Amino acid sequence: MALTKKPVNGMKDILPQEMLIRDYLISLVKETYRSFGFTPIETPVVENLVNLTSKQGGDNEKLIFKIMKRGAKFNLETAKTEDDLADSGLRYDLTVPLVRYYANHANELPKPFKALQIGPVFRADRPQKGRFREFYQCDIDILGDGSNMAEIELILATTTLLGKIGFEGFTVHINDRRILKAMAAYSGFPADSFDQVFITLDKMDKIGREGVAEELLEYGFEQSAIDTYLNLFEELAGEEDGVRFLGEKLADVLEKGAAENLQQIIESVQATSQVKFNLKFDPTLVRGMSYYTGTIFEIEIAGLGCSAGGGGRYDEMVGKFTNIATPAVGFSIGFERIITILMDQGFTVPGTADKVAFLLEKNMPADRLCEIMTEAQQLRAEGRQVLVSVMNKNKKFQKEQLTAEGYSEFKEFYVRPLQ
Amino acid sequence: MALTKKPVNGMKDILPQEMLIRDYLISLVKETYRSFGFTPIETPVVENLVNLTSKQGGDNEKLIFKIMKRGAKFNLETAKTEDDLADSGLRYDLTVPLVRYYANHANELPKPFKALQIGPVFRADRPQKGRFREFYQCDIDILGDGSNMAEIELILATTTLLGKIGFEGFTVHINDRRILKAMAAYSGFPADSFDQVFITLDKMDKIGREGVAEELLEYGFEQSAIDTYLNLFEELAGEEDGVRFLGEKLADVLEKGAAENLQQIIESVQATSQVKFNLKFDPTLVRGMSYYTGTIFEIEIAGLGCSAGGGGRYDEMVGKFTNIATPAVGFSIGFERIITILMDQGFTVPGTADKVAFLLEKNMPADRLCEIMTEAQQLRAEGRQVLVSVMNKNKKFQKEQLTAEGYSEFKEFYVRPLQ
Repeated sequence: MALTKKPVNGMKDILPQEMLIRDYLISLVKETYRSFGFTPIETPVVENLVNLTSKQGGDNEKLIFKIMKRGAKFNLETAKTEDDLADSGLRYDLTVPLVRYYANHANELPKPFKALQIGPVFRADRPQKGRFREFYQCDIDILGDGSNMAEIELILATTTLLGKIGFEGFTVHINDRRILKAMAAYSGFPADSFDQVFITLDKMDKIGREGVAEELLEYGFEQSAIDTYLNLFEELAGEEDGVRFLGEKLADVLEKGAAENLQQIIESVQATSQVKFNLKFDPTLVRGMSYYTGTIFEIEIAGLGCSAGGGGRYDEMVGKFTNIATPAVGFSIGFERIITILMDQGFTVPGTADKVAFLLEKNMPADRLCEIMTEAQQLRAEGRQVLVSVMNKNKKFQKEQLTAEGYSEFKEFYVRPLQ
Repeated sequence: MALTKKPVNGMKDILPQEMLIRDYLISLVKETYRSFGFTPIETPVVENLVNLTSKQGGDNEKLIFKIMKRGAKFNLETAKTEDDLADSGLRYDLTVPLVRYYANHANELPKPFKALQIGPVFRADRPQKGRFREFYQCDIDILGDGSNMAEIELILATTTLLGKIGFEGFTVHINDRRILKAMAAYSGFPADSFDQVFITLDKMDKIGREGVAEELLEYGFEQSAIDTYLNLFEELAGEEDGVRFLGEKLADVLEKGAAENLQQIIESVQATSQVKFNLKFDPTLVRGMSYYTGTIFEIEIAGLGCSAGGGGRYDEMVGKFTNIATPAVGFSIGFERIITILMDQGFTVPGTADKVAFLLEKNMPADRLCEIMTEAQQLRAEGRQVLVSVMNKNKKFQKEQLTAEGYSEFKEFYVRPLQ
């Protein structure tokens, strides 16, 4: 039977050069987040189908790779739909598994629980350049802390990490779903159409204020609501302290304390961060997932043209598993996007120099081989990376290949030592 | 809809304490194998079904988790068997994906190529204690080197790793499939029944020589062949240098150079290893997978009662993908088994002490919060692990939980500073 050399459609093999950067980023992530008290955890990549189709995942639920039942449970004759033949699927994010994990193990975990997850997720999306059906996500979450200390910690940890990677002058956009909703309510949009309004608002940076106005009108919203709404944004643009301004302006429709809460997050982060970045209140920030209940944030790296991560507070999701209200907030960095940036920059992983290759002519006598191996072992014990390899016929090409892999020193060994 | 708290049947969540040890082992593996010039690579966990059912995987091919086709390709009405509905599956080992990877990328990789893989594999096995349907494998492989330098490097690298983990006095059993076959041929077993003979031989350590004799007789083999075979083992037991003995004894049926090849591997490793362990020629070592063509090895850790890893040479497998004969040899450590041993030993990961927890009373004023966060940030910058957490009502229980997580120092902050 003919075998297939290519990976499955839409997934990719990681070549050594990229792998080096991925390993480096993963260890930097773990080291940094651990210093903030986050604990690495891991869940199976396979998840119960009922949890993957629980309406927590939005459109991602349409993209599930489903796994077939096995043995007697697989019955083709009685199956009416594909779901009769599947019992599990590949996780499409790390949030649903985290919430299940917490529900399952809450008694064994500290409260609040600070979790770190890095791992592959799967979406049967249409394959396109730079977007794969298996990709890594990297999330930190704090479960069981309803105070804004959780948001402050998440932002400090994430921006510290970005700083260590080498990013500077990036922006973290921040908003609160409650402020987002209060602005819509204040303007006179009906509560059941907020999501539609936000989908349009989310395009503000692309289509501008006029574009937003046109689209809202097309959807049949009242002109007066649209005008009030856009005026709010107009006024905000001139305000130094937008959050305080909205806190006063929206007092009647905004949950008490919501503006002060956001203000305290911004001030605390700005006062304590050791990384250069902008933390910017952004009233147009929406974030797609409907499970967010409070603060939301998104990372913008200048010149990238797309988000490099984001997150927010989702206080109601854990309770759906546990029936115990449990506040939760998470921040995810765009792991694959950051890898792409570093690859494009020709990033060199620190400490990967100093690699030496021993090239041995074929049929080296046993005693000489032992001498050479002993020399290699000694260098390794000193912390050096030593490749011992047969010498190819085309030695020049072999050395070029190894140079591309980062080998900077070569030592050649011949059966008859050179005179 | 009711959600499920448990992981899918047969898979498990990794709790923080185990995760700490796993992360430590992974970084030790990567650091050690890199020092031997192995390059980390990664393949998708999803593999083409045709590659998973190519008869390379033996019985594992019966245990594949199959993934359903999607969209228009999924046609329940025309499907006759489950394979009409599946197009891919979860990999059951790392060897098949490695060979596909190498076939796909040989031109971009150095020759010989030294690969390191760590990652999850999946087998729909009957769940049982300590055995899971998703588990990590950790393999090193050298592709494109037909010389025994490859075996020497694999054994030195693996035993160096085991030494760094803290194992001492373990045994690496070594044999060669060609010697195994030559012993059977010399004894007069027919070539097409060798596999049956080896399945019985493999039980030698459990059922003894008499048990082996009985079983072979039951299978209908000739008494004279059985006697010759067992006499060989008898004679071997009295030989100091079993490999040399067999090299002479089996000269007529053994591939020329095979015994010398194995002898050189054993001598070179013994002369250059910096770890205390036994490298032992074991003529009863079989290794299950039929793809092995030459040297085979297996790790025995005293008192464990089962193998802690193994591997061997499989010179014919790559050619099935590439149509270009490519020698290959690999060594796999029993990652999950080692984790279990370390957990059972109460292993403490080095460098995880020095964790401090800041416990903050609720509703800390903004300015005080900033002071506290700044103090935490400074400690983190100094390399310490600092958890900032709300103080729970049951502070005593919270501290107990955190102590179990490895926090050794606590600092409490109150809204009204204590006098």
